[in-house]
Amino acid sequence: MNKDELVKKLPFWNMLNNEEAELVKMSATINKYPKGVVAQGFEDECLGVIQVLKGQLRVYLLSEEGREVTLFRINEGEFCTLTASCIIEQITFETQISAEADTELLVINAGTYERLADSNLQVKCFTYELIIERFSEIMWALQQILFMGFDKRLAVFLYDEYSRTGSLEIKMTHEQIAKLTGSAREVVSRMLKRFADEDIVEFKRGVIIIKNIAALKKIIK
Amino acid sequence: MNKDELVKKLPFWNMLNNEEAELVKMSATINKYPKGVVAQGFEDECLGVIQVLKGQLRVYLLSEEGREVTLFRINEGEFCTLTASCIIEQITFETQISAEADTELLVINAGTYERLADSNLQVKCFTYELIIERFSEIMWALQQILFMGFDKRLAVFLYDEYSRTGSLEIKMTHEQIAKLTGSAREVVSRMLKRFADEDIVEFKRGVIIIKNIAALKKIIK
Repeated sequence: MNKDELVKKLPFWNMLNNEEAELVKMSATINKYPKGVVAQGFEDECLGVIQVLKGQLRVYLLSEEGREVTLFRINEGEFCTLTASCIIEQITFETQISAEADTELLVINAGTYERLADSNLQVKCFTYELIIERFSEIMWALQQILFMGFDKRLAVFLYDEYSRTGSLEIKMTHEQIAKLTGSAREVVSRMLKRFADEDIVEFKRGVIIIKNIAALKKIIK
Repeated sequence: MNKDELVKKLPFWNMLNNEEAELVKMSATINKYPKGVVAQGFEDECLGVIQVLKGQLRVYLLSEEGREVTLFRINEGEFCTLTASCIIEQITFETQISAEADTELLVINAGTYERLADSNLQVKCFTYELIIERFSEIMWALQQILFMGFDKRLAVFLYDEYSRTGSLEIKMTHEQIAKLTGSAREVVSRMLKRFADEDIVEFKRGVIIIKNIAALKKIIK
């Protein structure tokens, strides 16, 4: 699909008048980020309104000491407006965004989105709804971190990865899992070792293999 | 002020047409909650859109094990729409609300608010903006809990109390401070003891007195 076709599939396309539609068409770009790149940092302007065409983004908090807490991921096909936070004055916190794989984004830059939201109350309202949806996802993630024992959190993470990829093999380092679960590498390694001792997972050539999905589910309950 | 006058001071009053204004007037109630009462629990319907006329509400998360994490407070004069969460489908998490003092609320019930938001896009958009503002407050609170050492968190709490009340005397139990800082009573007591050893605070008749505001500020920095 070319850019003009992609733009017409944006979830707010039908809310736009001709002039607004033209503006969106003209300003849309396709941006590519190689795996591992930080697409939005503290000092940068924000991305704008985006749709993930390929790959995956991870949105996280970064502490002064360099600790990361993952808030949510934006998967292929998903649309996100929280990435336009710099022009939404009610948002006063800062998030980091990194590419979890080679990623391609359809981007409506923040300036264009600002003009749209100013002229079109329906678009503004719609983008707020999407932000509030992400807010709910974030609250879920943070409640897990605040309230759940780490065995449960790690089991949820492994089960979610299995659900998402359909594969029992999880190709991630302990360090990566620590970042994604808002924990420390040592804590992840220790808990994975316990899971291995209990025959719930095993390790092969740097891959974590889920051996007993029923046992995982039992921990989650 | 009577109810009719109070309603006319609602921040979205000027956005309403005659019919909508009449609906708000008719459905508005003044609710009273004695100090300590849980105004909204897991099982209840939500409050609706509210304005605190007197007193203060605290909005918090409650874990299955009974741990509380304070998200924000709604002070006298403040307006809140996150309290209408039950009719905002994008909000999927549950919060508890308790009265921190004898509290009086002007309440527009959730059903009325739903009708308003359906008929008036401007009101809907406005209430979303207020939710996103609270979202930012929540993120700030949670970042403190996730990333800050407890000495810093407690110092921030004491300093905020002093700023809010203008008094160096903090009339709260260690248990109450633990709830408000998302910590455990023992942790609060231990840290307050350390602050007392360092002559930053002292204890008198169940009251915590801030003796050295400069030292508190230094911890916060």
